[in-house]
Amino acid sequence: MIGIFDSGLGGLTVAREIMERLPGYDICYLGDTARTPYGNKSPETIIRYARENTEFLLEHGAQLIIVACNSASAAALEALEASYSVPIIGVIEPAARRAVQMSRLKRIGVIGTRSTIASGAYDRAILNIDPSAVVIGHACPLFVPLIEEGWAKRGETKRIIRINLQGLKTKSIDTLVLGCTHYGFIKEEIGQRIGRKTILVDPAEECAKYVVDYLKEHPSLEARLSHTGRHRFFVSDITDHFHALAQQWLKMGLSLEKAELG
Amino acid sequence: MIGIFDSGLGGLTVAREIMERLPGYDICYLGDTARTPYGNKSPETIIRYARENTEFLLEHGAQLIIVACNSASAAALEALEASYSVPIIGVIEPAARRAVQMSRLKRIGVIGTRSTIASGAYDRAILNIDPSAVVIGHACPLFVPLIEEGWAKRGETKRIIRINLQGLKTKSIDTLVLGCTHYGFIKEEIGQRIGRKTILVDPAEECAKYVVDYLKEHPSLEARLSHTGRHRFFVSDITDHFHALAQQWLKMGLSLEKAELG
Repeated sequence: MIGIFDSGLGGLTVAREIMERLPGYDICYLGDTARTPYGNKSPETIIRYARENTEFLLEHGAQLIIVACNSASAAALEALEASYSVPIIGVIEPAARRAVQMSRLKRIGVIGTRSTIASGAYDRAILNIDPSAVVIGHACPLFVPLIEEGWAKRGETKRIIRINLQGLKTKSIDTLVLGCTHYGFIKEEIGQRIGRKTILVDPAEECAKYVVDYLKEHPSLEARLSHTGRHRFFVSDITDHFHALAQQWLKMGLSLEKAELG
Repeated sequence: MIGIFDSGLGGLTVAREIMERLPGYDICYLGDTARTPYGNKSPETIIRYARENTEFLLEHGAQLIIVACNSASAAALEALEASYSVPIIGVIEPAARRAVQMSRLKRIGVIGTRSTIASGAYDRAILNIDPSAVVIGHACPLFVPLIEEGWAKRGETKRIIRINLQGLKTKSIDTLVLGCTHYGFIKEEIGQRIGRKTILVDPAEECAKYVVDYLKEHPSLEARLSHTGRHRFFVSDITDHFHALAQQWLKMGLSLEKAELG
């Protein structure tokens, strides 16, 4: 079974991409809605939560863990890899690879939460692949609440996007990593503001493609994964608003199960 | 010692009001920054967190607990009162009293987080004082992130405030309760949008005044409270951003101590 966790519901975009590419594979999703968001919190706290999420998924039979959250991938991936024997895949490495591959000028912008940008995780991942690249990060902490409150298409949000991207626009980047799962919902607006020629990299999509490749390269793991088509969606807190967001973002009806964490 | 807790740092506005009115009284503040915000979470989860916060403060010697958070007061005050023997004071009852006292038309608006408004706690508190009053609630979940990100004075925030208050403007209210500790930081902008004649009620201020009155009415409790002037500020997660916000909101330098919760 493939286990996927996120700080909340944004990781459902990763789950959706994986379900589309690997239909029939059993999936268990965990969204830590009781402690969401992670993006303003410290690495220590995010690592603690990421461990609890991973243990929950392992207890439910996960044989592969996807960290479908940029903030958690940035802060906790190394700590998780050091602690657990199952393969653990984050969203940063796949997105960094894609960004380096697509960028002609090797001037790559990254936007994300405060903790993702402060961690420097994208910088390290990109420079590890191409030490000559220039990485320019910028935190955009208002995008998540605007998207979660359904303001993605409104004029005020477009103005806030423009103000946030102003600095990056002067930096001659040709590629921009949307380093937070929510940003896919304002991809078009970001594209309009940063300039049509800038290539946008979506970590949700890259992560799902990476998982498909990983399973091809690890056939013994692939053969052990269950294929009964069972999809379970756990959250650590349930409200009507969370339920509505989850259905909207997964683009399908779903029932949420309560996970007791912490 | 007076114990004060909040979902994060907004409750420092209450702490500040109390410190000004009761100088020399020992205070222990706890901000649950590791799980902030509470405003979109379920009553069950908020009650669980409120209990843990209360127990932390009791272990640190609190003889009186102030719930300096509208979402926690709305969801958890009754549960806390039923569980603990120390006096527990929330922000809703004092603000409701003041609103009824000030409102001539008895048409009272309330703005707050999604959970505060959904709880109906302000409606119950106001109708309990004056059953003939009309209470009109409206959730404004974007105000908190805009304020926390330092956007209080920007044009986009003013536009978002205007859009959020549009519905209330047509309801002929003469009094508006700012039912979230953060909203004090945009009091002027809210006043401009809702109309200068509308009376604004700030629960932080009302709660502090209520505490002063409560201690006058309970001299034996007052006599037992320590007066060494010691102020401690605990948070469940520390980041540079939280530290900067705390100093800005308390209007003084402070050192944060880490609280282990949950």
